[in-house]
Amino acid sequence: MYKVTFKFENSEDITVFAAFGENLLEVARKTNVAIDAPCNGNAACGKCKVKLVKGELESERTRHISQEEYDQGWRLSCISKIAGDVEVLVPDIASAYRSRMKVADLGSAEEIQIFEKTEQDISEAGIKFKNDLEVIRVTMNPPSLDDTMPDNERLSWAVEDLCEAEDVRISFQVLQKLAENLRKYSFDVQCVIRRKGNKVEICDLIGAKETPVVAGLAVDIGTTTVSAVLVDMLTGKILAKGSAGNGQIRYGADVINRIIEQQKVGGRKRLQDAIIGETLNPLIDTMCREASVQEEQIFRVCVASNTTMNHLLLGVDADPVRMEPYIPTFFETNSVFAGDLGLHTNSHAKVLIAPNIGSYVGGDITAGTFASMIWNKEEMSLFIDLGTNGELVFGNSEFMMSCACSAGPAFEGGDISCGMRATDGAIEACTIDKETMIPTFKIIGGEGQKPVGLCGSGIIDVISELFRCGIINPKGKFIREGERVHRDKYGMGSYVLAFKEDAASVKDIEITEVDIDNFIRAKGAIFSAICVMLRSLDFDVSMIDHIYVAGGIGSGINMKNAVYIGMFPDVDMEKFSYIGNSSLSGAYAILLSTEAQRKVAEVAHNMTYLELSNEPTYMDEFVASCFIPHTDASLFPSNQEAR
Amino acid sequence: MYKVTFKFENSEDITVFAAFGENLLEVARKTNVAIDAPCNGNAACGKCKVKLVKGELESERTRHISQEEYDQGWRLSCISKIAGDVEVLVPDIASAYRSRMKVADLGSAEEIQIFEKTEQDISEAGIKFKNDLEVIRVTMNPPSLDDTMPDNERLSWAVEDLCEAEDVRISFQVLQKLAENLRKYSFDVQCVIRRKGNKVEICDLIGAKETPVVAGLAVDIGTTTVSAVLVDMLTGKILAKGSAGNGQIRYGADVINRIIEQQKVGGRKRLQDAIIGETLNPLIDTMCREASVQEEQIFRVCVASNTTMNHLLLGVDADPVRMEPYIPTFFETNSVFAGDLGLHTNSHAKVLIAPNIGSYVGGDITAGTFASMIWNKEEMSLFIDLGTNGELVFGNSEFMMSCACSAGPAFEGGDISCGMRATDGAIEACTIDKETMIPTFKIIGGEGQKPVGLCGSGIIDVISELFRCGIINPKGKFIREGERVHRDKYGMGSYVLAFKEDAASVKDIEITEVDIDNFIRAKGAIFSAICVMLRSLDFDVSMIDHIYVAGGIGSGINMKNAVYIGMFPDVDMEKFSYIGNSSLSGAYAILLSTEAQRKVAEVAHNMTYLELSNEPTYMDEFVASCFIPHTDASLFPSNQEAR
Repeated sequence: MYKVTFKFENSEDITVFAAFGENLLEVARKTNVAIDAPCNGNAACGKCKVKLVKGELESERTRHISQEEYDQGWRLSCISKIAGDVEVLVPDIASAYRSRMKVADLGSAEEIQIFEKTEQDISEAGIKFKNDLEVIRVTMNPPSLDDTMPDNERLSWAVEDLCEAEDVRISFQVLQKLAENLRKYSFDVQCVIRRKGNKVEICDLIGAKETPVVAGLAVDIGTTTVSAVLVDMLTGKILAKGSAGNGQIRYGADVINRIIEQQKVGGRKRLQDAIIGETLNPLIDTMCREASVQEEQIFRVCVASNTTMNHLLLGVDADPVRMEPYIPTFFETNSVFAGDLGLHTNSHAKVLIAPNIGSYVGGDITAGTFASMIWNKEEMSLFIDLGTNGELVFGNSEFMMSCACSAGPAFEGGDISCGMRATDGAIEACTIDKETMIPTFKIIGGEGQKPVGLCGSGIIDVISELFRCGIINPKGKFIREGERVHRDKYGMGSYVLAFKEDAASVKDIEITEVDIDNFIRAKGAIFSAICVMLRSLDFDVSMIDHIYVAGGIGSGINMKNAVYIGMFPDVDMEKFSYIGNSSLSGAYAILLSTEAQRKVAEVAHNMTYLELSNEPTYMDEFVASCFIPHTDASLFPSNQEAR
Repeated sequence: MYKVTFKFENSEDITVFAAFGENLLEVARKTNVAIDAPCNGNAACGKCKVKLVKGELESERTRHISQEEYDQGWRLSCISKIAGDVEVLVPDIASAYRSRMKVADLGSAEEIQIFEKTEQDISEAGIKFKNDLEVIRVTMNPPSLDDTMPDNERLSWAVEDLCEAEDVRISFQVLQKLAENLRKYSFDVQCVIRRKGNKVEICDLIGAKETPVVAGLAVDIGTTTVSAVLVDMLTGKILAKGSAGNGQIRYGADVINRIIEQQKVGGRKRLQDAIIGETLNPLIDTMCREASVQEEQIFRVCVASNTTMNHLLLGVDADPVRMEPYIPTFFETNSVFAGDLGLHTNSHAKVLIAPNIGSYVGGDITAGTFASMIWNKEEMSLFIDLGTNGELVFGNSEFMMSCACSAGPAFEGGDISCGMRATDGAIEACTIDKETMIPTFKIIGGEGQKPVGLCGSGIIDVISELFRCGIINPKGKFIREGERVHRDKYGMGSYVLAFKEDAASVKDIEITEVDIDNFIRAKGAIFSAICVMLRSLDFDVSMIDHIYVAGGIGSGINMKNAVYIGMFPDVDMEKFSYIGNSSLSGAYAILLSTEAQRKVAEVAHNMTYLELSNEPTYMDEFVASCFIPHTDASLFPSNQEAR
């Protein structure tokens, strides 16, 4: 056995023992050292770079590592084998993808106003913001020698009377503590009930003078990030809000790699553990602590997520989702209770899942579309969700069409060498001085925060600025030289955003031609999808009344720049709105409103799906869109003015 | 710390360390050394006697230990404290109460004929022996690019069609494996379904060519012994049968001591663990292995047990059951699923509980009464269940009355110094030669088995024979002398059943005047209860057409002897039947037949309950019954002939 020491930029060393020939990435995973491997260890993404500080590693150089870097000690951990005692440095960027858990401060109005707006929008559309959970006061006569009815009948009769119900069911958890609670509260209690027609289920029982807590949990499970709100089911009030990286990321950044992983022996369990045990439960625990809510007081859960994510959540085989004829196990399901998943909530809590409409358009989109309210407007709206992939919905109250394009994870910082999620240290906005080529940043994390990498909105700005300043050409190739422009021995250029002295990084933060090329293909996929979908309906961009942009790209997104690089159609800036995490707002609505739940199902049923790969023009459109802004510059008239 | 070594008659020593002053019984419990303490360590029962072999113990002599025994080293472990290194011998009799698990050989017809009779009786009464579980073959078209319905809808539609159902629910376990199973079996499958009206729940899914296994579990949870059968829900066939001692016995032999224990911190969990984790689950595991059934294939459970036992099973506070005004949490409940209890069955299996009718007449009696069929006869029947207590039901198809008498555990060998359960080594029958006073035994366990102690049926025989031979008088006092009659220094007599040389015991097996007195009070409680109940209805014993004796007293019971000592009324021998464990047969019927389940509830509702302690004549009757056979010998005319 050899000693393997992991060193970090900002925390203490971790030393473990490993056998000769063991894979370094595997050793890190076993040791709980966070090293991202979006490609799941296939030497494809280059994200798992570590620096050999001392000792030996058996490791080849790959295209992700220049000879200079290799000489400095940089290695891909996924192809490195232990060959002796070794010390490696794990740079912050290597785990930037795996965000720390973050619970929001509800003091800031921003955090809750999106939910208030959702409630308001939905109520205005005539949908009751009400669910079937309520609290009732139940007062009974205590038993005596002349009145020896058992406790459960006494309670059932009283509730039957009060609710004019015909069938009262007492949940096991209430039954188990019934004797002591009825006596402790002198047969004067409050019950949390669920009422459906003339049936009532008693879910909880507390004293008449206690303050009831009836909480629910809405969750958006993104491929990269999980966001959740803990909600008061009676008032709709947000009790806590939090987010965390999806723990499955170590098995791949995209859904395909995770589906491959779940196919391996024990894989489904591993992926389920990663999302539930490692991600959701710690997040729930933290939010509960923050809001002083007991886990048993969470009586309902609503999950919005893409089809693969909700299949992996349930531990359901997701392979048929990606293999022809692309059949998910479910679009909708009412089979799931929290206890089946081991969620840290009341085990009898029903788990609502926002309906999928296909293998590539899932509950995150139906929930998001619902929250966007486009289904309730006469005007034509385009809904764009920029997650780990891109999904589009276009339509109005009469019809809706959706499609999905494999834009890849670039909008969330994936596929970009210095890319990272929109979290502390991320450059979220950028301008570049045309003369000096010196950039100015807005960095997440506030004053004094040094840059770590680039998040989605930052990438848009950087590419837009590089183009505006004539540093890159429409193909994304470097055409100016200077202190900040580097070239490797093949002449491939890169731009230094921050020298390592000014960055929270052991290396310069650079964006390379490869990165720019990856991003151009991502934005090209989005734009060409928009064009093809509109054309299939005999529409053109001038007929779009609203564009709603949602997703993890970050609220910092500069729409003008996004149009400038040809990612979004060139329409009036006023038509654009960034609506944040619409998947989570939709989940919030479904959780709280039984009518909204029904309406989302209706919206999902009415949405048609366009399979882009079946559209003959898509490939040509895509190729034409892989320029800045486009091969047909006339599509972007306002860009001419901007120059 | 001191070394404590437990020595055994038939197994290897166990040595552990304990602190000065620690209680020996507690040390044994922690070490998993089985020492019975029916009184739960209150120095009241004298069952926890061990022999000090070497070293020191701080321990007083009590009334349970003679000076001679004390000098030999006998101590009550419940009042012994560790005072140094020590070696103690734990005799077999000290753990005879805690029976080993036993899985019956179904080759012997005896083991299953009681269930066949129950099925026959019930069917003859016009009750369908059928439940709502069934297996259907479902053949679907495989999906294609033109038919992309998700798997769960495909299955639901096909089942809706086949069953003409309106609402099909797929259980989570089926959903979770749906994708792989449908593909593995080429969309040609069998479903285990539960049908209720126009609703269908799909509980399991297997290939079209596989043999379906749809099992159920019927359990009788006695205070002392747990018996169970694993059953084919489709045919009623017994797949396995087993029994085990109730693991709760270490917290007391009777319900009162266990209720006291569950009141302590963590007590409810301890008692629940003892019955579920230590008793039921190992028993289920063993039966499943025996019958090649997977635990997920057990789709329903039915439990028959007294009110305290079913409350402790559910982890429900049982204290109100024993405290005025004696209110159980439930008589009937539909709130319980196997997953709530952690039973080793399908977690979605419904747990049916035979209805209680009061604090002291529980589901074991309603199930047993049902199995006895007395509710379906015009003739007057008396049903006597001799468990750890005695319960009686009298009536016919028009009315039924029940009562409970605190007979104590004597019928199962409790309260008797050499008493034990009807298991290997128990003397189950006995005759005594009037001249020589030498006994002849029938011992459970077959040829070569040496006696360990006396079980219930054996005690009846021994007392009957001692009385017939003039060795004891009607008060149970010894009136003859001889080699086998011992006297202690106070003149208290005892009879040696087996000298230690002939016994599987380190001591002579003796029955003492105290034992005989305990038993006389137990049989007196039964007989006086019968008299008082009959009189309250204006009946007398001559009007009894049948007497059904059920319970753990053992099939060896000699009815003639039981009448001879005044335990049962003096009626024609042909009127007596021993019907075995009727509680288990009743549970079996409820498990398998939905109509039987309904009928048992009806039987329970129609049964009135007589509280004996409210009957003014009960005390006098009891005192008069505490003689052999009774102060009024004219009640037992046939005894005169027997003499």
